[in-house]
Amino acid sequence: MKKARIIECVPNFSEGKNKDVIKGIAAAAGKVQGARVLDVEWNASHNRSLMTIVGEPEAVYQAVWEAIKTATKLIDMRKHKGEHPRIGATDVVPFVPVSRMSIGECVKLAKKLGQQVARELKIPVYLYEDAATRPERVNLADVRKGEYEGLGVEIQTKKERKPDYGPTEMHPTAGAMVVGARKYLIAYNVNLDTADVRVAKDIANVIRERNGGLPGIKALGFLVDGKAQISMNLVDFEKTNMDGVYAAIKEQAHKLGVKIAESEIYGMIPLEALVKMARDSLQAPDFKAEQVLENRIYGFE
Amino acid sequence: MKKARIIECVPNFSEGKNKDVIKGIAAAAGKVQGARVLDVEWNASHNRSLMTIVGEPEAVYQAVWEAIKTATKLIDMRKHKGEHPRIGATDVVPFVPVSRMSIGECVKLAKKLGQQVARELKIPVYLYEDAATRPERVNLADVRKGEYEGLGVEIQTKKERKPDYGPTEMHPTAGAMVVGARKYLIAYNVNLDTADVRVAKDIANVIRERNGGLPGIKALGFLVDGKAQISMNLVDFEKTNMDGVYAAIKEQAHKLGVKIAESEIYGMIPLEALVKMARDSLQAPDFKAEQVLENRIYGFE
Repeated sequence: MKKARIIECVPNFSEGKNKDVIKGIAAAAGKVQGARVLDVEWNASHNRSLMTIVGEPEAVYQAVWEAIKTATKLIDMRKHKGEHPRIGATDVVPFVPVSRMSIGECVKLAKKLGQQVARELKIPVYLYEDAATRPERVNLADVRKGEYEGLGVEIQTKKERKPDYGPTEMHPTAGAMVVGARKYLIAYNVNLDTADVRVAKDIANVIRERNGGLPGIKALGFLVDGKAQISMNLVDFEKTNMDGVYAAIKEQAHKLGVKIAESEIYGMIPLEALVKMARDSLQAPDFKAEQVLENRIYGFE
Repeated sequence: MKKARIIECVPNFSEGKNKDVIKGIAAAAGKVQGARVLDVEWNASHNRSLMTIVGEPEAVYQAVWEAIKTATKLIDMRKHKGEHPRIGATDVVPFVPVSRMSIGECVKLAKKLGQQVARELKIPVYLYEDAATRPERVNLADVRKGEYEGLGVEIQTKKERKPDYGPTEMHPTAGAMVVGARKYLIAYNVNLDTADVRVAKDIANVIRERNGGLPGIKALGFLVDGKAQISMNLVDFEKTNMDGVYAAIKEQAHKLGVKIAESEIYGMIPLEALVKMARDSLQAPDFKAEQVLENRIYGFE
């Protein structure tokens, strides 16, 4: 029996209006056996689309490569306008481990893809997040500084903007590309039993990692449908999972005389996040994803 | 996209010594496309084996049917001796809903199988548990009273032992069969930080359903590797799940001045048990199994 390894890749493309182009890119990825395009989203004012591709690592790699080749043919950055920052036709490509894959293996895939893009498509490639080759390239915003227009000048003149792979000039129509690896991001919101948004903002201030709170937690306070909401990204659920941040919010809310109304897991999560929650909350250190019947049925072949 | 429905079936056969027979029965089930024989266990002193077959309902039904036909050919009850109670070559066949299937749909499968066994194999069939047609046949032990030898006489003479389907006499070599449907059974143990087995027995007494404790909880106290252990079956995790019984044990243990050392999920559990745990413990009523990435990848086609 072979254990199925799974990764996710969420490439972002600089086209959010022309449905034929978006469909064409998705179709190129969808043709690859063993990979699945789970979701396609686009935004016209951002003029940008993103695809969620999942499956076995080799298949996802191939699907993303086919999508990039198609985007390189169909998108012309010289004509591109949109609200969202971007440097290329295929703008950002993060590889994300889901099951039985390490972040290190995803870094390897990112570097391999970067080299292939540079070599075969002559597009300059920057590595970011866990694949970054220097600290100042970890953050996506720093890599994208100046955008397509500004980077087009600096890539030729400034040593610190030299790409990791490929030419020191922009591809005439496809621009440049950012490729990397990151951990799975869980979007998780907690609604409070109050309409006072300041309570949500105060709690967000306390729990977010940047202010010395919980590791891997990004948090903001909003008012949503009349309820104060703490809206979060969990960027490393192995460090702080949903139950951990829920307990921390409950404690802070209690101090402020407020209760949790409900919480909401937004979008998809990896099975391992649920398995880890059971392991921790039940003190069951030996519990494994292989004990989940559905995973055993489908995850082995 | 088609949503994959999944059931489990755990047929018990009256052969626990002859490996060729056991393998032959498993091989017959394993040939059916869409069903998978996840596990085969046997016990020589019980002279009994059981198989865990999972997959789509129609495929599992067909796999079980093939296994029953093979067991009917290969096992002769007239020569069978073993410690475990039994009435037939294929002794018990429970259908269990796992994903997107109701207990009612499993009852229908059980009745359909019972009718086919009676019609084509001329074996008398008794329906039990959720498929039972009368209260006194819900409990397996009651149906199996007198075993193969005793039932062989009473089936012909006593009205209350008339089978639900098939002849009112035993099949000469295959005996009779019990077929039914039940909910998924989770085996869950909690170890206490004490070697005093009386503490485990006391807590088991309080939490088990029979004594007015938690719904769907069967519990016993043991001493295992020097630790007092509460060993449980959760026969309806929709009513009482692992987190619920863990919390109840923690509370009882606290009263007795004892702590939980660790807990252990034994064997397989359905994804829905984990999803329900997250839904309840995070107050996240909208969270669904479809949001688990692995389930989305494999569970849809």
